Amino acid sequence: MYPDGKVDIIVSELESETAKKSNLDIHIYKNGEDYKKIIKKLTFPYKNIGINLNKIIYKDYLNLKKIVPQSNFKDVSDSINKTRLVKDEIEIKLIKKACKISDKVIEKIPQILHENMHEYELAAEINYIMQKHGADKTAFDTISSFGKNSSEPHYTHGNTKLKKDDFVLCDFGACYKKYNSDITRTFVFGKASKKQKNMYATVKEANKIGLDMIKSGIKASEIHKAVYSFIDKSEFKGRFIHSTGHSLGLSVHDSDARIGFNSDIKLKENMIFTIEPGVYISGFGGVRIEDDVLIKKNKSEILTKSARKLIEI
Amino acid sequence: MYPDGKVDIIVSELESETAKKSNLDIHIYKNGEDYKKIIKKLTFPYKNIGINLNKIIYKDYLNLKKIVPQSNFKDVSDSINKTRLVKDEIEIKLIKKACKISDKVIEKIPQILHENMHEYELAAEINYIMQKHGADKTAFDTISSFGKNSSEPHYTHGNTKLKKDDFVLCDFGACYKKYNSDITRTFVFGKASKKQKNMYATVKEANKIGLDMIKSGIKASEIHKAVYSFIDKSEFKGRFIHSTGHSLGLSVHDSDARIGFNSDIKLKENMIFTIEPGVYISGFGGVRIEDDVLIKKNKSEILTKSARKLIEI
Repeated sequence: MYPDGKVDIIVSELESETAKKSNLDIHIYKNGEDYKKIIKKLTFPYKNIGINLNKIIYKDYLNLKKIVPQSNFKDVSDSINKTRLVKDEIEIKLIKKACKISDKVIEKIPQILHENMHEYELAAEINYIMQKHGADKTAFDTISSFGKNSSEPHYTHGNTKLKKDDFVLCDFGACYKKYNSDITRTFVFGKASKKQKNMYATVKEANKIGLDMIKSGIKASEIHKAVYSFIDKSEFKGRFIHSTGHSLGLSVHDSDARIGFNSDIKLKENMIFTIEPGVYISGFGGVRIEDDVLIKKNKSEILTKSARKLIEI
Repeated sequence: MYPDGKVDIIVSELESETAKKSNLDIHIYKNGEDYKKIIKKLTFPYKNIGINLNKIIYKDYLNLKKIVPQSNFKDVSDSINKTRLVKDEIEIKLIKKACKISDKVIEKIPQILHENMHEYELAAEINYIMQKHGADKTAFDTISSFGKNSSEPHYTHGNTKLKKDDFVLCDFGACYKKYNSDITRTFVFGKASKKQKNMYATVKEANKIGLDMIKSGIKASEIHKAVYSFIDKSEFKGRFIHSTGHSLGLSVHDSDARIGFNSDIKLKENMIFTIEPGVYISGFGGVRIEDDVLIKKNKSEILTKSARKLIEI
């Protein structure tokens, strides 16, 4: 991309058919020598080249420096992050569609669950419904954890079988035309115990606090402080062990922006963040409720519409 | 990892439950300061630290250098690649299982296909069958391309509907306990035309040449030269536009090793490579046949067992 907005794309012959659909100027290389020649030719008149230090592999950077040793490389990752944080109309439309697909899946989960079902079977069903509804792929590895496995926030799925009264924590997202959604709902497969009900009610209220606070002008850290301190004043003190949310877009964790204690970001119109408090008790289970929110002027629009009430199946 | 083979793992609190299952020494950090302290403590007595330049993001490397400015960082990516190229017994077992899962899917594809089906629906079915058979996830974005879309080697899937006499190119893999398979079969949905038959026969023979040649002691580039020149002598000269194969393992393209013109690698026992020649005609379609092969002493074992003959549906 040049200062005047023109974009050149360098691709291997393998990707050329696909790249040609982009309406951008594409340069096709057949081998490493070709690639070097194209890079040299395109960068020749430019002294300063911006690179995204947040994404480039160190070895690729070293190779690039070897090809054009006369150029200065400037880290433009902050500018890229800032631009990606605020979504335009088309991006919002695509994320809304991705959220709609995840809502469709949540709606069907209670009918899918049956005793002795494996976690990986539930993951297969979730992914299948997403893709049948038009998701290009899953936004990330689908989490479908039963019982005590739900106490691991980044567990994915395994061979564990569903038993009566288990928590069922489902965290997944649809990737639609490169834009992602990210939703979590936690169910009880049976009749919730008092402890399960308390956990659920605490997380539901924490989620509501986040959803009520999120709007333009607020500091992200303020939201996290309020959500965190609410859980910390409950019987589940110390059980909320991650940030309240993150920016969502082309990546699931977009622009490196979070809603956490150390976030220095102030929220602006057309940013999209998740709100996802959770409570985790090792050996017992976990509850997380996650929604995707579009930030508007002094208000917000919740893009994931699935019910947040406790569903006992 | 230390010279004596001891392994320390540094994880966030979020991953701690999962990491505890590893039987390795884990160090849990709660925030950025914690993380720095742990890195400093663990690296303190060591002057030389090996890093994988092929994988580390440049910004992460710069951060690491800031935390331990007194250490020398050495690029150990070559050693890591070399080690990963040769598989041990457990790795081979897991890749075999991943191959078995993909074979199960190939077997079912002819029954799934129906006129006007969308490409994305076929992808959803392929992924569903893989996961129902125990794949943890897809090895990569499943390619299910119909008709002329099959001429784009890295096309994934879209809204195109299946029409009579279309090529159906399916390229996908199962990820099983972190190890991957990678298979491609091309079908004709109807009666193959003469051109389709010729394309298929050429690729099938090219695949056979690769499968016959691959064994310990041979240079990877020799295989590519033979496969390439076979296609180049046919009516499809210039239509084979990628390398003949790549190493397969923890990553789908493992260890940066390929079977191409510039490969300087000699094949050894217990390496696993794909053999995947193809012929692509823009605006018409493409054929690729891909198998996964375990290299043995003076012979090889084809791990993907699906039939290679032309299937007209």
